[in-house]
Amino acid sequence: MARARDLGILFDGASGQWNTITDVPGVEVGYATIVAGDGALQMGAGPVRTGVTAILPRGKASHDPVFAGWFPLNGNGEMTGTAWVDESGFLEGPICLTNTHSVGLVRDAVVGWQARTGTLFQPWSNPVVAETYDGYLNDINGFHVKEAHVRQALDTAASGPLAEGNVGGGTGMVCHDFKGGTGTASRVGRAAGQDFAVGALVQANYGSRADLRIDGVPVGREIGLDRVPAPDWRGEKGAGSIIVVLATDLPLLPLQCRRLAQRAGLGLARVGGVGHNGSGDIFIAFSTGNILPLGGAAVLTGLRMLPNEEIDPLFEAAIEAVEESILNALAMAETMTGMHGRTVHALPYDLLAEAMARYRRRD
Amino acid sequence: MARARDLGILFDGASGQWNTITDVPGVEVGYATIVAGDGALQMGAGPVRTGVTAILPRGKASHDPVFAGWFPLNGNGEMTGTAWVDESGFLEGPICLTNTHSVGLVRDAVVGWQARTGTLFQPWSNPVVAETYDGYLNDINGFHVKEAHVRQALDTAASGPLAEGNVGGGTGMVCHDFKGGTGTASRVGRAAGQDFAVGALVQANYGSRADLRIDGVPVGREIGLDRVPAPDWRGEKGAGSIIVVLATDLPLLPLQCRRLAQRAGLGLARVGGVGHNGSGDIFIAFSTGNILPLGGAAVLTGLRMLPNEEIDPLFEAAIEAVEESILNALAMAETMTGMHGRTVHALPYDLLAEAMARYRRRD
Amino acid sequence: MARARDLGILFDGASGQWNTITDVPGVEVGYATIVAGDGALQMGAGPVRTGVTAILPRGKASHDPVFAGWFPLNGNGEMTGTAWVDESGFLEGPICLTNTHSVGLVRDAVVGWQARTGTLFQPWSNPVVAETYDGYLNDINGFHVKEAHVRQALDTAASGPLAEGNVGGGTGMVCHDFKGGTGTASRVGRAAGQDFAVGALVQANYGSRADLRIDGVPVGREIGLDRVPAPDWRGEKGAGSIIVVLATDLPLLPLQCRRLAQRAGLGLARVGGVGHNGSGDIFIAFSTGNILPLGGAAVLTGLRMLPNEEIDPLFEAAIEAVEESILNALAMAETMTGMHGRTVHALPYDLLAEAMARYRRRD
Amino acid sequence: MARARDLGILFDGASGQWNTITDVPGVEVGYATIVAGDGALQMGAGPVRTGVTAILPRGKASHDPVFAGWFPLNGNGEMTGTAWVDESGFLEGPICLTNTHSVGLVRDAVVGWQARTGTLFQPWSNPVVAETYDGYLNDINGFHVKEAHVRQALDTAASGPLAEGNVGGGTGMVCHDFKGGTGTASRVGRAAGQDFAVGALVQANYGSRADLRIDGVPVGREIGLDRVPAPDWRGEKGAGSIIVVLATDLPLLPLQCRRLAQRAGLGLARVGGVGHNGSGDIFIAFSTGNILPLGGAAVLTGLRMLPNEEIDPLFEAAIEAVEESILNALAMAETMTGMHGRTVHALPYDLLAEAMARYRRRD
Repeated sequence: MARARDLGILFDGASGQWNTITDVPGVEVGYATIVAGDGALQMGAGPVRTGVTAILPRGKASHDPVFAGWFPLNGNGEMTGTAWVDESGFLEGPICLTNTHSVGLVRDAVVGWQARTGTLFQPWSNPVVAETYDGYLNDINGFHVKEAHVRQALDTAASGPLAEGNVGGGTGMVCHDFKGGTGTASRVGRAAGQDFAVGALVQANYGSRADLRIDGVPVGREIGLDRVPAPDWRGEKGAGSIIVVLATDLPLLPLQCRRLAQRAGLGLARVGGVGHNGSGDIFIAFSTGNILPLGGAAVLTGLRMLPNEEIDPLFEAAIEAVEESILNALAMAETMTGMHGRTVHALPYDLLAEAMARYRRRD
Repeated sequence: MARARDLGILFDGASGQWNTITDVPGVEVGYATIVAGDGALQMGAGPVRTGVTAILPRGKASHDPVFAGWFPLNGNGEMTGTAWVDESGFLEGPICLTNTHSVGLVRDAVVGWQARTGTLFQPWSNPVVAETYDGYLNDINGFHVKEAHVRQALDTAASGPLAEGNVGGGTGMVCHDFKGGTGTASRVGRAAGQDFAVGALVQANYGSRADLRIDGVPVGREIGLDRVPAPDWRGEKGAGSIIVVLATDLPLLPLQCRRLAQRAGLGLARVGGVGHNGSGDIFIAFSTGNILPLGGAAVLTGLRMLPNEEIDPLFEAAIEAVEESILNALAMAETMTGMHGRTVHALPYDLLAEAMARYRRRD
Repeated sequence: MARARDLGILFDGASGQWNTITDVPGVEVGYATIVAGDGALQMGAGPVRTGVTAILPRGKASHDPVFAGWFPLNGNGEMTGTAWVDESGFLEGPICLTNTHSVGLVRDAVVGWQARTGTLFQPWSNPVVAETYDGYLNDINGFHVKEAHVRQALDTAASGPLAEGNVGGGTGMVCHDFKGGTGTASRVGRAAGQDFAVGALVQANYGSRADLRIDGVPVGREIGLDRVPAPDWRGEKGAGSIIVVLATDLPLLPLQCRRLAQRAGLGLARVGGVGHNGSGDIFIAFSTGNILPLGGAAVLTGLRMLPNEEIDPLFEAAIEAVEESILNALAMAETMTGMHGRTVHALPYDLLAEAMARYRRRD
Repeated sequence: MARARDLGILFDGASGQWNTITDVPGVEVGYATIVAGDGALQMGAGPVRTGVTAILPRGKASHDPVFAGWFPLNGNGEMTGTAWVDESGFLEGPICLTNTHSVGLVRDAVVGWQARTGTLFQPWSNPVVAETYDGYLNDINGFHVKEAHVRQALDTAASGPLAEGNVGGGTGMVCHDFKGGTGTASRVGRAAGQDFAVGALVQANYGSRADLRIDGVPVGREIGLDRVPAPDWRGEKGAGSIIVVLATDLPLLPLQCRRLAQRAGLGLARVGGVGHNGSGDIFIAFSTGNILPLGGAAVLTGLRMLPNEEIDPLFEAAIEAVEESILNALAMAETMTGMHGRTVHALPYDLLAEAMARYRRRD
């Protein structure tokens, strides 16, 4: 498999070392990928095509909170914990992604993990867990995500290069009627005289074939439905969602994190997202750029803030990182056969190249 | 035990038949109350003082959705499912209340119950589950709420009079440093030439002793901390929250439901609520006044709407119902001893009467 | 005239030096009070009972912005400039209050004043101007507020004691069916080991007689409508609004300013506010506790933040200051006769005292 | 001048009769275009390049309100009247667009017009007026928009084909560093078994040259800055905004109008919008699909609602209409010289064609 830019797709901006969300110093990501069984659905027995993704804003080195903000482009989905993000401006633990019907299990498991590891910020916790729906390939009502999977994702979280495609929470996902899943990318730049990194990680499970555009080229229409069949959505009209997590080391205030999260929708639009009614297009952004010690009673001092007037390079970089993350999810996901023998096809590299060549690319 | 008005407290407005949220036709409420063990905490073994409350907007007779809206006065808490309430204006299943660390279990259990009973509105579900923190009396990190409890609350939901105090999700709660819990009340009236009922159900777990006011009388200060000790919150500073569920049979649009939910805060303020930082004061309101059939593809017709200009009687009635619901939670909750032998005292009727008598009540 | 506490009404908390919003260091307030003509309405000629209030967050000493946030309890009103407050977290100029139909004039006049004084933060400006409706006493469709009045309010803004009642934007207002208008109060306290001041200024024009409560006593019902007639609202059902401006020197982030603004509704509820449909109950709060130089391109450093866990003393103080500000508006407003010879009666001190005496007050 | 599709640009979807917002039955639009003077700025004397656009949701035939909702993609701008749109779900008068510093004048003038014509819905009014900044070409601090211009725009509003480019509020605007202004487009389609029209009108004043994309082609980069100079923004860094008004005859509830408004950002993203910090990207949508008589006291009956599940065709059509409206604004705006002899160049048709030809378009 190859990432999008290795397939010759051109992007704006400079990516970081690994072109992943982990290019933001401190950010760690872990996965639990759960694949088992084949054939017809036996609810509770499988087939299973699902998982968990965990993002630790400061890694395991520090459980100090970060400033954060979230934004729903279309709220047909769940992101728990957002009332407190809205109210406090703080994200006080990891962000986890999973399938729609395992959000609760993952949420309580994060609480348990925090209680055991002594990383509760308050005596209680309302973790941030988001989801997309993998019920086309996965026995979603079989509730196959278990506490051990959550621990696995949290405990294996690491910096460095990341797996993409059919991994973690993205395992069973479908995007623009191709196999979707987990994707990530980053950009580095300068704002207000300071170097910065911004990274995105998406769980991409949205969109129709016809809407897919890559660098302005209507790739979805060019490939069409004849040469690469699309899933049969008759039973699940409108299913689909995308979760975007954005991280940056610039010192943003909570409101600025929300602004950043909102820009994810503009990256999504470039690839062909329209915020369909059935889609839970929910975005969260956090900033590691301030030290926010746990639970002190004195006024916090020494905070920093990117001036709003200097935020445009970050916005542009974030939009680009989201765009590339989605295309990485598409590029890195392999064809998967799951529940009822249903097959979701990967974006075919040859037809992609053919479509791109029909339109002269900038060079 | 006696309800607040049976203790001589005066309220404005006319209550419905049972003075409960179930006075709104169709609304059904069920509880699972989980009490087990005594003495020191053995995490996972207890003591247990917790539960689940389930509110079915149209009862078991109909799983058609209702219009709804929610409002967080202070978001240090969780109410899942709100992204879709915000986006769609619909509440597509029950509302469940439990303790903070069991929200996930309850949420997934509701999904499972919907899947089994064929009452999913979409192929997926993002149920509404809210919480308050009972970790002063309850082994909250022992995760004692199980799927069977959720089914029990849902399956036993009924119209008619309701238990209050130490029941359901309210079992282990503390309010104004007295024993709190579940309370309910209703008002009936007329708006836009139509009879209406509005009902409230609260899970009351907020507030300091000094702030408690009843009919304007500073009862909390009058009783003080010497004669009735308060819990020792040193380990859980600022713990406390209140969830309010409001129901009405007036035909409200979703925006009007949100407006109604927001009024819960004004009822809370009358009793002494200040929206403390540690408090998850989160409110949701729904209207059964429109028939909204599940999943049709044609334009919905025959909808009705209360004119905004006629909404004040409903607002006033809702504020009163919330006020009385909180006082019913206080009045009906019995002294409870839980984890570590901690005791939370009920509001003492004699000292309440004494305090009220010091201030001449309107008559 | 006397302020509320000089009439024997008891309040919690310690007020600042002048018990005004100007107790927050740097805050300056100016008024233009416009009273002319008597008798029947001649639209454009009067009678005129209106004005402008200007609040300068850092006074004339500095036009640097402040962090701010706003909250609408009921949005039947206008507060311009809030889109940018929401987006940026900054308040970049004065806050002005006037009558509903002069908001535009005042808004553009502030722009002109900023352009002339070189205090535009960006090349353009979207000032914050809010309103309540004085059309019961004032020829509101005569548009009697002129640019010179705005300049007067801005240019005369000062620290120190403030006039209250029938002054500035509050000149022609009605509150709980008594004469209302402008009121202010403050509280001082400690949070996170730091002394703080919080001040409120209200333009009080809301509420029905029956709802008025003072220190828990139902003063409105006690006085009733027989001894002190209420305005005849038949032509203007539901007219009424309240604008609250809150200021503090604690270092709040923008989200915390919004949280503070939201608490104004709890103070309002204590006095009997219910957020009626016709009421524009809109609140804004700002913090002078951080130095935010105009327009720099470097990362802002040295910012401070009150920990959320330490914010409760501020919330409680703000609620108290709002409550007292409303009562000061009522206590300090004199009976006024305006358009069509309509008279709105001041809250009568003797009947107030009589009502308070019927209920034993805390002592 | 030619509209975008007459220049050979391809669009998805079917446009209405005139391909304007007035394709939505009842909608009327009027302009006042104010152009005077040349040469250096003499503040108050000109040069003047500005105007007013008025959109009447039901035309002059009916002043009944419509359901509406708004959404700020980036709130560096003003749209007055939104607190009441949010609260009530109603738009109770026209929408007017003008320059940033004339919002107040226009707003009060609309109030006066409503008072004179007896079309106030309540005794007071908080009109919806939005703006973009034309201070590069126009003496914006000269306040050249007068009440007569507002009346002209309102009184000349009509259905049928519309002027575009340098007209109305869009007169002095700049878009992607070409001459911008007013643009409009429409789509017709079917949803929930019903024919519908959706129309957009934009006041386009945002964006950098490099970001402009047309049908996926990076036209801005292809044309570059050498052959067609861009304005010199040194004094007004980040200036720019876009207001979008969306209208449909589908019966949307207020929440659905807000959802529709939010989709404007996705159309904007397709053309290259990034929601820059300096940009006031504010959108409003209304639905004429329900009859909402003014001020009745009885429950409204017979309302209709498009099911959320059927809303995707509308979303897609709206995104397309916004995209085409922006390109119409660019295509129809002529090169303009204004204040200080500054010239803003129109998008050159030849270079546009050359750029499009370098990229093979779908056919």
